[in-house]
Amino acid sequence: MSTTFTPIQEIGREKLLEKLKTYKGAEVGAVIHAAGDDAAVIKASADKLQLLSSDSFVEGADFDPTYMPFTHFGYKMVTAVVSDIIAMNGEPKGLLVNLALPNRMSVEMIEQLYEGIDRACKQFGMAILGGDLTGNHQNAVFSLTVQGEVAEVDLVTRSNAKQGDAICVTGDVGAAVAGLRILMREKKFWQEHGDQQSQPDLGDYKFVVERQLLPVARLDVIKTLRAHDVTPTAMIDLSKGIIKEVTSLCRQSDLGAHLYQAAVPVAVETRQVADEMEEDVDKYALFGGEDYELIFTLPEKDVDHFIKHFNDFSVIGRMTPKEDGLILQTAEGDLIGFDELS
Amino acid sequence: MSTTFTPIQEIGREKLLEKLKTYKGAEVGAVIHAAGDDAAVIKASADKLQLLSSDSFVEGADFDPTYMPFTHFGYKMVTAVVSDIIAMNGEPKGLLVNLALPNRMSVEMIEQLYEGIDRACKQFGMAILGGDLTGNHQNAVFSLTVQGEVAEVDLVTRSNAKQGDAICVTGDVGAAVAGLRILMREKKFWQEHGDQQSQPDLGDYKFVVERQLLPVARLDVIKTLRAHDVTPTAMIDLSKGIIKEVTSLCRQSDLGAHLYQAAVPVAVETRQVADEMEEDVDKYALFGGEDYELIFTLPEKDVDHFIKHFNDFSVIGRMTPKEDGLILQTAEGDLIGFDELS
Repeated sequence: MSTTFTPIQEIGREKLLEKLKTYKGAEVGAVIHAAGDDAAVIKASADKLQLLSSDSFVEGADFDPTYMPFTHFGYKMVTAVVSDIIAMNGEPKGLLVNLALPNRMSVEMIEQLYEGIDRACKQFGMAILGGDLTGNHQNAVFSLTVQGEVAEVDLVTRSNAKQGDAICVTGDVGAAVAGLRILMREKKFWQEHGDQQSQPDLGDYKFVVERQLLPVARLDVIKTLRAHDVTPTAMIDLSKGIIKEVTSLCRQSDLGAHLYQAAVPVAVETRQVADEMEEDVDKYALFGGEDYELIFTLPEKDVDHFIKHFNDFSVIGRMTPKEDGLILQTAEGDLIGFDELS
Repeated sequence: MSTTFTPIQEIGREKLLEKLKTYKGAEVGAVIHAAGDDAAVIKASADKLQLLSSDSFVEGADFDPTYMPFTHFGYKMVTAVVSDIIAMNGEPKGLLVNLALPNRMSVEMIEQLYEGIDRACKQFGMAILGGDLTGNHQNAVFSLTVQGEVAEVDLVTRSNAKQGDAICVTGDVGAAVAGLRILMREKKFWQEHGDQQSQPDLGDYKFVVERQLLPVARLDVIKTLRAHDVTPTAMIDLSKGIIKEVTSLCRQSDLGAHLYQAAVPVAVETRQVADEMEEDVDKYALFGGEDYELIFTLPEKDVDHFIKHFNDFSVIGRMTPKEDGLILQTAEGDLIGFDELS
């Protein structure tokens, strides 16, 4: 047995993931994509593929029950995992839920969690397939797995974007992180003043707070794409911010990208929060996570066709040759390079 | 929001699971079985079914790194989840691994864990499909999901046992709990004497310790059943002990069962540990978990046919009418009733 002890933070989570990807188990003919995309892809029949994706949510790291009601968090977890299936242009069908629960959580809290899970499943057309319930002396850890499907011809991955394709993003970005900033401010206020009677008035921030607490996976987008016979060349969901996700698209499609900051869609409510916090709204927009919008790439002619039927997306850039790297052109015309592609 | 606080331990895990089963999400036509069997069943094509099962493993509750080397635990987790697919008469194809990791765990520990996972996947013919890596300030929580498949005609559930069927168990039982007793004794000794130089000599207990640390899922059994054209009427894997698992078979098949204690297969090594611990070996055999053997039911004629080709199973009883309940006949001829069926 190895006696070396390398702390995980020394190499970082992404490097550890890279190491773990070298373990592949057996070669199974039906497996088309394993690790590396939003979801694993398995051949189910002559023309149909199964999609599988799984995520863990850790109390204290991924959620904080002090400002995250459990019904909301149940819903949000489903959005997070479903979003991975949608990003492959697939439709979710079933959900497995594993809960590791400390004793200080009540039956009612878990029922609230399940109300949110159930609501999201009904909205996204998924059955709850079961799962596992176990005790944990420490904190709550939830693990959700979504099963979905897609016709083989409709599968979209991260790796097939073409040079010149338009980079499109749905909805607007940065709102979820703006909502988080508001909730954290309220939590701090509450902790410092300790007055349980004073309920914070979040009415002014309803838009951003809802985007943090109840983000909606964009199943509507892929249904609309299909209805108008448009198949993106590549797609990814926005869980970690535009720069990180476009970096993934570039790496896996072996291309670069040129982004126009002025074209990145940001809601006025998100700008107001950034102003109030005296923070840079562009940081929210480019690096803020958990928006669960979609980033997809389309040839120009498909953009022209699709925009006639669906207007809830913005073209924020173009795929370029790999040598050009990932470049962000600011509103002032400055070019900022991100050298994460290598 | 509900302000009632009912501690989970007040109603118990099984009652909570019953409550949670009422949340079903959307009705999805392709879903054949959701919660309640070893694995969820989803129609994949005209004659093929997909199987999905998921389990969580919590440090401190489900495993203890002080006596459980990570390579072994990686292997054991796979056995535990694969066993659920096998119990539906299905073959595992792919595995998703979610890890929530505290910083005190090293890169090397996680690589050891993956070596065990990888070895088990190769042995059971499964690809590692990916998963999720997240941090946890507290303890390690692992969550594994297996995807498998079975031809629709070959599916076996818990609910189709017939009155008069023989109840069969593969291999022998109680060995895993005997191994656990030895490992816990060694841990206690080590903690009390604190001498890191003295490696415990587990050679005398190799058989039972291996059954605890490296249990093998019985994929061989279902392959042999299939090779000889035998399909059990019902099947379940032995993760929680014979009495609990037969209780599940009875409940879901709406029947009773009559078990012969003298017929329950126990290895001589398991008996020796029980003697040494001055404990009742029948308790190990009837209530000990984690053996990952299979319990299946067969009509008498199939037993006669199958036993000619495969002798690693024992007939331990018969399915009876529901009114008779679950009865254990001791070696002395006493009848013990288990009233858990209602």
